[in-house]
Amino acid sequence: QIKLRRRIISPYDTRYRWWQNFLIPLVIYSAWVSPFEAGFLLEPIAPALSALDNVLNAFFAIDIALTFVVAYSDSHTYLLIDDPRKIAFKYLSTWFIFDVSSTIPFQALALLFTGKYGSGLTFNLLHMLRLWRLRKVSALFARLEKDIRVNYFWLRCAKLISTTLFSIHFAGCFFYLLASRNKLDPENTWIGSSISPNFKEMSVWDRYVVAIYWSITTLSSVGYGDIHPKNTQEMIFATVYMMFNLGLTAYLLGNMTNLIVEESSRTRRFRNMIRNASHCASRNQLPEILQNQIIDYLSLKFRTEEYNQQRIFDSLPNGLRLNILQHLFLPILEKTYLFQGVSYSFLLQLVSEIQAGYFPARYDIILQDEAPRDLYIVVSGAVELFFCRGALDQKLEKAETGDVFGEFGVICNKPHGFRATTKTLSQLLVLGRNALLGVLETHVEDRQIVMTNLSKV
Amino acid sequence: QIKLRRRIISPYDTRYRWWQNFLIPLVIYSAWVSPFEAGFLLEPIAPALSALDNVLNAFFAIDIALTFVVAYSDSHTYLLIDDPRKIAFKYLSTWFIFDVSSTIPFQALALLFTGKYGSGLTFNLLHMLRLWRLRKVSALFARLEKDIRVNYFWLRCAKLISTTLFSIHFAGCFFYLLASRNKLDPENTWIGSSISPNFKEMSVWDRYVVAIYWSITTLSSVGYGDIHPKNTQEMIFATVYMMFNLGLTAYLLGNMTNLIVEESSRTRRFRNMIRNASHCASRNQLPEILQNQIIDYLSLKFRTEEYNQQRIFDSLPNGLRLNILQHLFLPILEKTYLFQGVSYSFLLQLVSEIQAGYFPARYDIILQDEAPRDLYIVVSGAVELFFCRGALDQKLEKAETGDVFGEFGVICNKPHGFRATTKTLSQLLVLGRNALLGVLETHVEDRQIVMTNLSKV
Amino acid sequence: QIKLRRRIISPYDTRYRWWQNFLIPLVIYSAWVSPFEAGFLLEPIAPALSALDNVLNAFFAIDIALTFVVAYSDSHTYLLIDDPRKIAFKYLSTWFIFDVSSTIPFQALALLFTGKYGSGLTFNLLHMLRLWRLRKVSALFARLEKDIRVNYFWLRCAKLISTTLFSIHFAGCFFYLLASRNKLDPENTWIGSSISPNFKEMSVWDRYVVAIYWSITTLSSVGYGDIHPKNTQEMIFATVYMMFNLGLTAYLLGNMTNLIVEESSRTRRFRNMIRNASHCASRNQLPEILQNQIIDYLSLKFRTEEYNQQRIFDSLPNGLRLNILQHLFLPILEKTYLFQGVSYSFLLQLVSEIQAGYFPARYDIILQDEAPRDLYIVVSGAVELFFCRGALDQKLEKAETGDVFGEFGVICNKPHGFRATTKTLSQLLVLGRNALLGVLETHVEDRQIVMTNLSKV
Amino acid sequence: QIKLRRRIISPYDTRYRWWQNFLIPLVIYSAWVSPFEAGFLLEPIAPALSALDNVLNAFFAIDIALTFVVAYSDSHTYLLIDDPRKIAFKYLSTWFIFDVSSTIPFQALALLFTGKYGSGLTFNLLHMLRLWRLRKVSALFARLEKDIRVNYFWLRCAKLISTTLFSIHFAGCFFYLLASRNKLDPENTWIGSSISPNFKEMSVWDRYVVAIYWSITTLSSVGYGDIHPKNTQEMIFATVYMMFNLGLTAYLLGNMTNLIVEESSRTRRFRNMIRNASHCASRNQLPEILQNQIIDYLSLKFRTEEYNQQRIFDSLPNGLRLNILQHLFLPILEKTYLFQGVSYSFLLQLVSEIQAGYFPARYDIILQDEAPRDLYIVVSGAVELFFCRGALDQKLEKAETGDVFGEFGVICNKPHGFRATTKTLSQLLVLGRNALLGVLETHVEDRQIVMTNLSKV
Repeated sequence: QIKLRRRIISPYDTRYRWWQNFLIPLVIYSAWVSPFEAGFLLEPIAPALSALDNVLNAFFAIDIALTFVVAYSDSHTYLLIDDPRKIAFKYLSTWFIFDVSSTIPFQALALLFTGKYGSGLTFNLLHMLRLWRLRKVSALFARLEKDIRVNYFWLRCAKLISTTLFSIHFAGCFFYLLASRNKLDPENTWIGSSISPNFKEMSVWDRYVVAIYWSITTLSSVGYGDIHPKNTQEMIFATVYMMFNLGLTAYLLGNMTNLIVEESSRTRRFRNMIRNASHCASRNQLPEILQNQIIDYLSLKFRTEEYNQQRIFDSLPNGLRLNILQHLFLPILEKTYLFQGVSYSFLLQLVSEIQAGYFPARYDIILQDEAPRDLYIVVSGAVELFFCRGALDQKLEKAETGDVFGEFGVICNKPHGFRATTKTLSQLLVLGRNALLGVLETHVEDRQIVMTNLSKV
Repeated sequence: QIKLRRRIISPYDTRYRWWQNFLIPLVIYSAWVSPFEAGFLLEPIAPALSALDNVLNAFFAIDIALTFVVAYSDSHTYLLIDDPRKIAFKYLSTWFIFDVSSTIPFQALALLFTGKYGSGLTFNLLHMLRLWRLRKVSALFARLEKDIRVNYFWLRCAKLISTTLFSIHFAGCFFYLLASRNKLDPENTWIGSSISPNFKEMSVWDRYVVAIYWSITTLSSVGYGDIHPKNTQEMIFATVYMMFNLGLTAYLLGNMTNLIVEESSRTRRFRNMIRNASHCASRNQLPEILQNQIIDYLSLKFRTEEYNQQRIFDSLPNGLRLNILQHLFLPILEKTYLFQGVSYSFLLQLVSEIQAGYFPARYDIILQDEAPRDLYIVVSGAVELFFCRGALDQKLEKAETGDVFGEFGVICNKPHGFRATTKTLSQLLVLGRNALLGVLETHVEDRQIVMTNLSKV
Repeated sequence: QIKLRRRIISPYDTRYRWWQNFLIPLVIYSAWVSPFEAGFLLEPIAPALSALDNVLNAFFAIDIALTFVVAYSDSHTYLLIDDPRKIAFKYLSTWFIFDVSSTIPFQALALLFTGKYGSGLTFNLLHMLRLWRLRKVSALFARLEKDIRVNYFWLRCAKLISTTLFSIHFAGCFFYLLASRNKLDPENTWIGSSISPNFKEMSVWDRYVVAIYWSITTLSSVGYGDIHPKNTQEMIFATVYMMFNLGLTAYLLGNMTNLIVEESSRTRRFRNMIRNASHCASRNQLPEILQNQIIDYLSLKFRTEEYNQQRIFDSLPNGLRLNILQHLFLPILEKTYLFQGVSYSFLLQLVSEIQAGYFPARYDIILQDEAPRDLYIVVSGAVELFFCRGALDQKLEKAETGDVFGEFGVICNKPHGFRATTKTLSQLLVLGRNALLGVLETHVEDRQIVMTNLSKV
Repeated sequence: QIKLRRRIISPYDTRYRWWQNFLIPLVIYSAWVSPFEAGFLLEPIAPALSALDNVLNAFFAIDIALTFVVAYSDSHTYLLIDDPRKIAFKYLSTWFIFDVSSTIPFQALALLFTGKYGSGLTFNLLHMLRLWRLRKVSALFARLEKDIRVNYFWLRCAKLISTTLFSIHFAGCFFYLLASRNKLDPENTWIGSSISPNFKEMSVWDRYVVAIYWSITTLSSVGYGDIHPKNTQEMIFATVYMMFNLGLTAYLLGNMTNLIVEESSRTRRFRNMIRNASHCASRNQLPEILQNQIIDYLSLKFRTEEYNQQRIFDSLPNGLRLNILQHLFLPILEKTYLFQGVSYSFLLQLVSEIQAGYFPARYDIILQDEAPRDLYIVVSGAVELFFCRGALDQKLEKAETGDVFGEFGVICNKPHGFRATTKTLSQLLVLGRNALLGVLETHVEDRQIVMTNLSKV
């Protein structure tokens, strides 16, 4: 926990995070309601709605005040700045003015000074300043994108859908505003000419549906044409909206393509790998049993994500990697008969040379007469050792958890005298010959112990 | 074959697979018919159709019962679970309720309890529960995607086309349902106002065509506008449909882009490789003959997919790789004069060091006076060896299947005394000098045999 | 040149290629004219047009006959098959039937048997079989895509544009065909209801423009709605056309995205490289002069495409690579004073170790007191050698084409006693110390010569 | 600075660049005004506008003249060509004719020869030749794309938006031109039939809005249908415009997808890396503390962009890389007690072997009993060394800026006798054991000094 000055809150503080999350629904509510009020509620807004609006304003005012005591992370040094003056300067010089103007209770001020609720175009437009609050939603999405607990695909979808829905809502409300403000010639408006000249007598719900219907018809570029702009003012707004839609559509499609490419890349990689392998096998006319072993091995490797594991370990620095390997493999190494009694330092060095792998069932790990390359330790599963003479396979031994095999060949540098085949899906530790000999060379005493252990068997 | 408890069926069982595949056409039929019945067949459904529906229900009821005795694969351990209680618990806690409600024969029950076939909106909507069965089609597509015998491009296309066609069908039927249910004012419906107020007297086929025509006009965003929603209810449905279409279109385009990028990537890679090589050759003013050799070699390498082969072999673990190489190269190695009489273990080690390659016709494999790096064994095709003095080329020998060349240079460490050029397209095994010497060092007896073989020539 | 049986033509034969290319305009003509004739020329077709049609048929008949004597490339072995029976079997079992039915002169046959030119729907549809010939255009595009002399971007664009234009033309003609065939109720057709009931009296040009206008309005999904299908038949065709357009649009957009991604990838890679480098430099507060050197070097490397060159050389097999390097560097090596009089085999080995590189002007190649790693030979440009003591730079020498520097340090294993800086853009050969020493070790006599050369200076 | 002939200007000359940038707004003005004049200002153009046009022409005439004295960069050799004859030949043979014809003051010439301002279709079309000047804007965008100071995403967006806006403007103006030129039958024009037959009496602003509204309606494929082409001429133009739009839309979407893929790739890479690491950690059941260390380390590595740094350094040639490393690490190395008094050449060699890295707080750099691999020098932050016996940790020392740790283990080849853990975020230099021993071997005297320094502690 990083210590900050007194009365300065960390932006990572849990309670502050909760406060921020609590504000999100309020933001969404006011972003949704503001255009609606501006468009459809021409008459002085109902006191209940107005009161609710002022309660919201109070919450956002508190948030503005809070921002002055919340530390921020410097973009260059990644350090938290907790100097109140720096915090205040940063806020005042950036978004303070916008935050304040989106919080001023214009209605209440109008009531105070003029004695009546404000109405008219100016008030409606001032109301739309509330939309600035959407910045908080945008920041939330940006934060969630870096949070790996959230599914990236659905998060991006949610972002795109929210943007689209809000655009439709906003454009519908604004388009209706243009028609309802046209006092001179209600018949020469989009709704007056297409639905009914007395459209103001329709229910709010019906009018809202018509506006939204026009909005989505335009955004999705269906454009039936039953509803379309009539006068110059409406044409200008429709023009702007259609230009915006061009960009929005391109953004939607670009994001969708991006997401689908990303989502399907794993399946595709798997298919390509398997297909290449089976092409290669059939071109070389490998026997069926080998073909199946190849496919089984690659499928297993893909499923257990071993590809990634090795790469991740390799990208870590020495100390951390050793720490992890020690945690994973030391308990197993200690228990094998071969390494009974050796020094801790010796085991630590062995551990850093070990690799772990899964092998499918009925899989040949060692061929008889093969040059010794690796020594194997069984972690789970079972491996059977056979001695083959001609066509006859004689079972020698069954290696199970904790057993070692291949150690004679590796230490004495003789071809393995048996064939080793997995009985079931097995996890094995693999220790390369050169690595083992290298470590033995630098630990003379431990070498003696290993040799003694080996001769006991 | 994995053994399961008695009376438990494996999900990979061939007969169970056939049963599943048999259900697919039934699913498609009922998914297609359910919206159609709901929309267009307002009157009590014809007994024949109703009977057919109940036969289908019977099949799906059997499938529900079957699911209780089919083992499932645990998502963590990849093991098959065959405990009947676990199977039942898993099914009951997930999809059982949906499967059952999509199978209840509401018509038959209505007939039983009320004495007449059910009709009305409720029944029509209950009918749409049948669409849940589409889950089986979705599962089929997911399964086929991982099956490399199925072409990925056409599978994805089929999936996209099915989704689109079904959406069009469903939206058309539902839109007609809205119009036909509007008893109050048939003229104020989309079809009543645009085609004819007496639309119910038209043939089912004509009405279906009009509905589908509207549906595709909207989905493809053409939106002629000759047919468009008239009342609030229809506008709401059109709004929802257009929003859905936005997503569907984005999904279609994203998938298409993904597929095309993938499909064209091979051609593009080939073009880039050849173009880079020929740019590079012309920038360095290489003579024409060398330029052609480069292009020929790269084209051949690309066509024979050697790129992939080496990479696939390298990604396999030791045992399997050795098994494959042994299968491919041991028979050839054994027959060469150089390795007559050597031990099996020696050959096994050589095999693991060998690489195979195709070489185009008239291609220089070894230049005279070149330092010895590799020894070559001809698998197929023919290689000619020349001795050059000044401008004169004297043909020494023609190496054919089973012949070795370059062995003197490699073993005695002297520059090759000849030039080797392929006569036709040839496949050669390449054995590196260091690898060969390394193996010879560890096998003293075999080394003697090889030396004797060499001196015999 | 590959030899084939007598009277069998190679598909790569120049004259056959010319014949194929000569057919392409005929194919395009007939693909364009066939739907037009079917749609707009209801009356018996003008004799001139009909005669032209039969001339074309004759050419395509010749092509069918020719196919029986053209060898084909087997898809498995990549060998040309010139057995006439195999050729005939392959052709007869695949496309023969389609080729023939697209070539039969139905009009002429009708004239022969019935004594008058055929007309009516059947004949018009038979006429459309000519479209099968478009297969030749498709094959041409596939062939050109693998030809690196053709720009990929414009080729794909041409393919997409042709497909789109042909679709528009075909749909327009067919849609008109539906209207003109509607004898019962011309007012209930798309053109009769929107343009004029007496549309058949309009000029062919005006009718064609209207049909094409409807077609593109639908394909581009603009859908003004001034022209739209009226009867069931037209609605069905429009439905099919809109579904086809969905696919075509997705295909267009997918291809375009693919092409743009490909085209812009070079610029983007360059930008990313330079940006990363300059970020890295400024984060580490490197002095301006070093920053500029980094940017200059990377820009030069990118411009001269060195990245690719090395990678291409490395992907070639030994023999070919050596051949190229010998061509590029041997003449330069021979002329340097250091390698006067050495053996050819020695030079050949050195050549395979050399790398070439461009260096920007005012660039430090060697720092004073640096451990000797490489020896440099100037190919073009000029390099200045300085001796620095404290802040004083004393110019020692100016190395120009053919000069060597760094050889003392490398051979005697002493830190370089000077700083080497390029004066202008220079191309240098770089020879690593270990490589040189390795080659010297295996050539004792040449080593003596080099030492003598070195001591002469 | 590259020297050119007298009176020849470099294209990179600052003043010439300013001149080019000064022309850009003039180009944009004339590209915007030319179609507008052609479409809407049918009457002789106002003298003021005409005069302004001629002033612009004068500027572009100067630019044409200037081009004859500006050197150009040869596309093959990358050299500046300053031979006036070559410059003139190149310009005259390429764009001279277009530049001149887009600059001729047709109006003024008409006034001169015919005594009155020209009007009529021919003049309007001649006016559109001015659009050729847009080539300068296109060249500007191409230049900016390679300038890393400009954000690529917004630059591409600006390019796409400009292209779209200009297309809309041009098509709107031209479409109006078609209507206004139709003297015969104003009611049979798009604007006459939909807005008012007396449309010429509307204000220019209203007419312009209607034209632009139609244009965007068509381009965005909304196609309400309230305004649509009426006669053949208009249909042809609309057909051409829709075809162009198909291409433009595909280009827009392709670019957008490309940009979004590029922009989101960093976030996605980060997410994938972290997700893979945490999957891998939880699958192996690593203790929480290790999991956190992995995530912390990877986040830090990503944030400090170390990935890129090492790769960039490696891609630079020897001399430059050494120069940079010397600048970064030499001052730190010189100050450590271990390397007091060693030679400059020794330090220079060490420097080229050093790697720098950031380590998060509470991170284990060395484990007790670990084999010695690296020696560490603290650049910033703090590292604590502990000696552990059983469960007890005894703090030995705190290493701060300039301190070395791990040197005993590395030089004497003994397992480290302590555990080293960072206290805060630290930057360390890492020097590998083999590298250090290699350098010590070749510098016998310096080795003695280092040993003496070591023994002093």
